[in-house]
Amino acid sequence: MKSFIEYSNECEFPIENLPYGVFSNDANRKKRIGVAIGDQVLDLSAISNLFEGSLLSDKQHVFQQENLNDFMALGRPSWLEARQTLQKLLSVENDALQNPDVRRKVFVPQEDVTMHLPAKIGDYTDFYSSIHHATNVGIMFRGKENALLPNWKHLPVGYHGRSSSVVVSGTPIRRPKGQTLPVEGADPVFGPSRLMDFELEVAFFVGGSPTKLGETVLASEAGSHIFGFVLMNDWSARDIQKWEYVPLGPFGAKNLGTSISPWIVTMEALEPFKVPNMPQDPKPFPYLQHSNLCNFDIKLEVDIKTPTGVATTVTRSNYKYMYWTPQQQLAHHTVTGCNINPGDLMASGTISGESADSFGSMLELCWKGTKPIALKDGSSRKFLQDHDEVIIRGKRINFLFKKMFFKRKKLIIKMLLLGYCQGNGYKVGFGSCKGKLLPANH
Amino acid sequence: MKSFIEYSNECEFPIENLPYGVFSNDANRKKRIGVAIGDQVLDLSAISNLFEGSLLSDKQHVFQQENLNDFMALGRPSWLEARQTLQKLLSVENDALQNPDVRRKVFVPQEDVTMHLPAKIGDYTDFYSSIHHATNVGIMFRGKENALLPNWKHLPVGYHGRSSSVVVSGTPIRRPKGQTLPVEGADPVFGPSRLMDFELEVAFFVGGSPTKLGETVLASEAGSHIFGFVLMNDWSARDIQKWEYVPLGPFGAKNLGTSISPWIVTMEALEPFKVPNMPQDPKPFPYLQHSNLCNFDIKLEVDIKTPTGVATTVTRSNYKYMYWTPQQQLAHHTVTGCNINPGDLMASGTISGESADSFGSMLELCWKGTKPIALKDGSSRKFLQDHDEVIIRGKRINFLFKKMFFKRKKLIIKMLLLGYCQGNGYKVGFGSCKGKLLPANH
Repeated sequence: MKSFIEYSNECEFPIENLPYGVFSNDANRKKRIGVAIGDQVLDLSAISNLFEGSLLSDKQHVFQQENLNDFMALGRPSWLEARQTLQKLLSVENDALQNPDVRRKVFVPQEDVTMHLPAKIGDYTDFYSSIHHATNVGIMFRGKENALLPNWKHLPVGYHGRSSSVVVSGTPIRRPKGQTLPVEGADPVFGPSRLMDFELEVAFFVGGSPTKLGETVLASEAGSHIFGFVLMNDWSARDIQKWEYVPLGPFGAKNLGTSISPWIVTMEALEPFKVPNMPQDPKPFPYLQHSNLCNFDIKLEVDIKTPTGVATTVTRSNYKYMYWTPQQQLAHHTVTGCNINPGDLMASGTISGESADSFGSMLELCWKGTKPIALKDGSSRKFLQDHDEVIIRGKRINFLFKKMFFKRKKLIIKMLLLGYCQGNGYKVGFGSCKGKLLPANH
Repeated sequence: MKSFIEYSNECEFPIENLPYGVFSNDANRKKRIGVAIGDQVLDLSAISNLFEGSLLSDKQHVFQQENLNDFMALGRPSWLEARQTLQKLLSVENDALQNPDVRRKVFVPQEDVTMHLPAKIGDYTDFYSSIHHATNVGIMFRGKENALLPNWKHLPVGYHGRSSSVVVSGTPIRRPKGQTLPVEGADPVFGPSRLMDFELEVAFFVGGSPTKLGETVLASEAGSHIFGFVLMNDWSARDIQKWEYVPLGPFGAKNLGTSISPWIVTMEALEPFKVPNMPQDPKPFPYLQHSNLCNFDIKLEVDIKTPTGVATTVTRSNYKYMYWTPQQQLAHHTVTGCNINPGDLMASGTISGESADSFGSMLELCWKGTKPIALKDGSSRKFLQDHDEVIIRGKRINFLFKKMFFKRKKLIIKMLLLGYCQGNGYKVGFGSCKGKLLPANH
């Protein structure tokens, strides 16, 4: 596939990706739905009349909304038709949008847009599905013998988060004030959190028809409710969390702000990057079982950029380290009858890899403050400092290169000889999820 | 005050109450905002042009909405003006609505309406603010010595709930299926919950302008964000909760459904029933301090009505047993910077009194299943059975009677001699919060 929009092989938004987002620009402050292609945004509100397929021809109004909820509600067959239409319209072989006058009307450079939350998030849920993360935290707080609690391998542990405080990448986050207990057994104190942390996560948006209260979506059917994925930073005040969280879970330590990347990468775009689900022992209950792949090779990185302007990559993890799949998370969310709606957001929990340089939070990377991280500007961190910017990236993956090398060794050798691979490789990226930590209010 | 709408002294919806709700009827399926008066609903969408005060004359559109969110957003001065306008319009001395033709257009009998959720609930939070409830649960699960966890008297413990599964009174609730651990140390099993419970709660709707992320509302200022109150049944699957809730709190055991009464009783209507806040030791941090009264004498009752049709009142509690006030809950919710929006719902947690017949859940009333309750139809309960209907009432309070007897002893004796009290007493009620437990799905 080749688009008339030009971009390099390094581009995160080729015609094979086509993530959805909501944007505005100075020339038009109205929030509109767009698709990222190369360094441009295709304004779907300007071309909604071109969705002429059998499913969307009388649903074009969904592209005139200020968020993606109505489009998300249509379900996978409509999402596939939209993707096919967009790939056709953006193809070098199609001239519907290539005329310079048309291009000026329907494309906006990404550098000129302001991105907004892509959906009205009805409810936000955060899971705890990375086995390395759960084990690390367990070792730190309960010791090696009791690292994983008894329920952890039987169900995807999760909790309801705060949807109002989910914000789009770029929104500054203020260091919270709250109660903490610096000395065990003494009285709590009130003041700015001293242990501010990031959590490297990936979240999915729910799509399809709303379900009814009392209804369960089985894991084997849950794929039809997964629209697409974003990067997430679940900012966490560790000292506040530790004092408040018994017995009902995290609250003020988390609802201070949760950042997501603006572009939703669809399940269809991630299809080529599927990898085997993590083996599960014990075998989960039937409602949690599914035979299809729902795990993804998404390389994840976190940078800390200090006020000096120097950025240091502090961890390299991967979505594939998830123990519980999104389909299992969604099934468990609905097993007791909880109804879900398009636009709901369900997050992975911190994604940590096996090795100490792949952990997904400062808490783990610096092992409860005992191993400071050296940054490139000469400073070091145990937790975040004021004015630090945290940048999460979903790293680009060269699909053809990867697939050929590891799965079709003979073919790749042939293709390499033909000089085919590099020219035809493409990458799918998430863009980034950024946020700067502001000092606490006085 | 006297209305031209006739009702008895026992009526829960006199002119002094005027709770807001959202209704429809067979003749007009559109959801409209209404006010309960006597056994009627005054349709505010039909009289929005009569809100001619300085604050509302250009905001009449808020009464044309399908929910109360826009009205809630206006803030207390506008709520007061609306109340004054309604009391004037409904007064026996005002003939604007008394003409029979007008009455037919603007009033609908309560028995003919379907009630809906009064607001679009952005986020729902459940606190845990009754000291007797927290102590009871603590004794059952941790023993008398450690009944209250160390943080409990320092902050109003709470957790984020699921807003999608909040439903209006009358909606049936299905017994959930889920994982439980019947035998400690053995493997979990999957099936219908065996320990279904109610939780007697009262919740308030947030009003006023949305706050910004990073902003804190102090307890002393929080009253301006409290619109009004409803009764709540926080249905709970105790066996599922016990297995799932470590370490991140309740999840599937609660998101199976949460019922609220349809009529929002405003802060203004509750003003006469204010009682002293519960004494707090230790003294809370300044952000949690407020000097005004924000505790209410609201008598609460729960009936269980079995399939025989016989109802038994299983508990009599009172809102006044709350340790933390709504203003303190709201302040703690925002202390780390969490933004709140009109239409958010914040619940009290189970409200238990001191004595064993005033506990707010079956878990406590039957003390973990060890003391079954005898019902009037000859059956007994440790937890809820299929087809049981749970009915929560906010019991009517005779204001004049109460106020006179306890606060103005001399005056009341004089008034009693004049036969004044009974004729002029009035009651403010919440109506009821009902829900029937359906059997689990096969």
